Amino acid sequence: MNYKFITLVMILLTNTGISFAQSAVIEDFKPSSVNQPERQFPQVNSQGRVRASIAAPNANKVKLDIGGVKYDMVKNAAGVWTGESAPQDEGFHYYQLDIDGALVPDPGTLYFYGAGRLGSGIEIPASDKDFYAIKDVPHGLVSENIYFSKLTNAWRRCFVYTPAQYTADAKTRFPVLYLQHGSFEDETGWSSQGKANLILDNLIASKNALPMIVVMDNGYAYENQKSISGDKVVRPVSVFEEVMMTEIIPMIDAKFRTISDREHRAIAGLSMGANQTMRIAMNHLDKFAYYGGFSGTSNYPSSDEINPATFLDGKFNDGKAVNKQLKVLWLGLGTKEQNPFPDSVGAFKTMLDKQGIKYVFYESPGTAHEWLTWRRSLHQYASLLFK
Amino acid sequence: MNYKFITLVMILLTNTGISFAQSAVIEDFKPSSVNQPERQFPQVNSQGRVRASIAAPNANKVKLDIGGVKYDMVKNAAGVWTGESAPQDEGFHYYQLDIDGALVPDPGTLYFYGAGRLGSGIEIPASDKDFYAIKDVPHGLVSENIYFSKLTNAWRRCFVYTPAQYTADAKTRFPVLYLQHGSFEDETGWSSQGKANLILDNLIASKNALPMIVVMDNGYAYENQKSISGDKVVRPVSVFEEVMMTEIIPMIDAKFRTISDREHRAIAGLSMGANQTMRIAMNHLDKFAYYGGFSGTSNYPSSDEINPATFLDGKFNDGKAVNKQLKVLWLGLGTKEQNPFPDSVGAFKTMLDKQGIKYVFYESPGTAHEWLTWRRSLHQYASLLFK
Repeated sequence: MNYKFITLVMILLTNTGISFAQSAVIEDFKPSSVNQPERQFPQVNSQGRVRASIAAPNANKVKLDIGGVKYDMVKNAAGVWTGESAPQDEGFHYYQLDIDGALVPDPGTLYFYGAGRLGSGIEIPASDKDFYAIKDVPHGLVSENIYFSKLTNAWRRCFVYTPAQYTADAKTRFPVLYLQHGSFEDETGWSSQGKANLILDNLIASKNALPMIVVMDNGYAYENQKSISGDKVVRPVSVFEEVMMTEIIPMIDAKFRTISDREHRAIAGLSMGANQTMRIAMNHLDKFAYYGGFSGTSNYPSSDEINPATFLDGKFNDGKAVNKQLKVLWLGLGTKEQNPFPDSVGAFKTMLDKQGIKYVFYESPGTAHEWLTWRRSLHQYASLLFK
Repeated sequence: MNYKFITLVMILLTNTGISFAQSAVIEDFKPSSVNQPERQFPQVNSQGRVRASIAAPNANKVKLDIGGVKYDMVKNAAGVWTGESAPQDEGFHYYQLDIDGALVPDPGTLYFYGAGRLGSGIEIPASDKDFYAIKDVPHGLVSENIYFSKLTNAWRRCFVYTPAQYTADAKTRFPVLYLQHGSFEDETGWSSQGKANLILDNLIASKNALPMIVVMDNGYAYENQKSISGDKVVRPVSVFEEVMMTEIIPMIDAKFRTISDREHRAIAGLSMGANQTMRIAMNHLDKFAYYGGFSGTSNYPSSDEINPATFLDGKFNDGKAVNKQLKVLWLGLGTKEQNPFPDSVGAFKTMLDKQGIKYVFYESPGTAHEWLTWRRSLHQYASLLFK
């Protein structure tokens, strides 16, 4: 071994590493757009780095925990810890702080339900953020609607977007999109970090989508849910499909001015929601004419070849019938999503191709299994509905 | 001195103290009703003690910070810190955790905007909690309504409660209550920790209040607010009154099926909101026939005798005219509120008495300057409106 050579290489690598790391942080940080009012931290720079800061004068170690990586923060003389992450993908990310082993929300941000908790979120400004920006256009309402569900023996809640046109007169009726969240998320996601209301406001104002109602409910539903507490009881089989068909849809049709035929009812979901809603749509093609699967399909998590004779009880077996009934079958995926998503959706597309079933496939550039993929998916999908 | 006697007394006191402290904590803790789904902590016992718990294996000191007092928590072998507060008043309280000097929300609870931040809340079950419980009655909607305000050059938001009757037909028009939050709170408070929607649902279902729309907006409004960032700019004079009269009310009357005369328009607020809305009501008696002041009046924080000839430009000077115009002048206060509130409201009542002005005065038993006082106040006040 030539130790001199190895030492030289190590010095070069180390120096390059250090100088790269130092020069890499561009000092153009600005407060995140989803901070609490007047909070200066967390901040984001043009590279997509997140800088967090918190006073913790007596702490031993504070870390910024984002994207599955923990970044050490450094304490100054005033007891304030500050630190930056590596560059993050554009769009919305959940994150938290680790203060001496306590995993807590950052007190600087608004809170979002995801990863099974209400926690901090950060927004890395996206190149195409204009489509979900708040603009001087007519804005619809997002209404919290609470109801008792007999199937689950529990109080449930959905958020209902009604377009600006809904309040313009008392007679016009509107088509409805049922839009579902992913696993460990809830009914708040789509109108909060999902920006569904702003996406629809902008699409409708620019005449790129027809005015529609959007219903965002909770995909977790179990029989006698009230008695289920934590991990003490094994969860029974989901009754979400029954809740959707026999409780949610009839309630919405009774409470809002909907057009209640299949041609004016669409369904879509992200991840777990894509899986659930595909099953619901295919089991009830007399009720839905549009399906959107954002980062998910019902064969998840398998990437095995799908047998259309048996998959979902053969619902895709007669390709011509599916083409006739589904006016839009829409699939979306981020280009940076990791398996099982690409392979699983890929296996589903292969099956569709074999069956001669028409579909739209959209790829969100540079995004992973995260909300920017789903904002873009909704933006694309909603523009095709009810036309 | 008889040292034996002193020693005996000290032993007795010490033993009594210890046994008192030990027996004082009753072990009937249950998870708080405003915890995140399936979270076991924080908990509350029958004495109103709050027990918090958080894993923080490497922390030096963790404290529960509630009601202006910090309570030490104790670490177990697994690195989980647990501790209890002294008994708290029944009702809703904001609180936080102190982890080695970092003041953070408890990851177990839902979050509420108050004290100028989104933070943890705890619910000590109230003896009269039934009036704001969720029940099997028709439920109204709470709608998020975003709008651009020219006066402030900023996007603003209000939440609008529409009663169940609002969606029953497309023709009926309803009276409106404008309901404001307190200082360091925002437009989310009344329909979240305030339970305004459930209070109205229950009152209306039991025929103790007439169906009405309730508008909850943000009481902070400044000219060119967009350009105000943090504490860098001295805040100009509030333009909330102008925003209410020329932006909010016309928007609500245009967007919702209101009855837009003064006899069908009420206003109320808590603390800062009581102060603001009294000024607005008295400056616009052609627009409002009902006023409610919950824990506040416009002479706040003074307890000096009020001169009706000059107070609010003499708006209370003609007692007979006020009696004729204000169908209900309503004041509420918690019996445990501290000054300046009781003395300030007291000075206002003294002035009303001198002027021969009729009013309702309600005292919330055993509550301080907190949300149970205001829930009860709304419950009382709303039952008197539009009758």
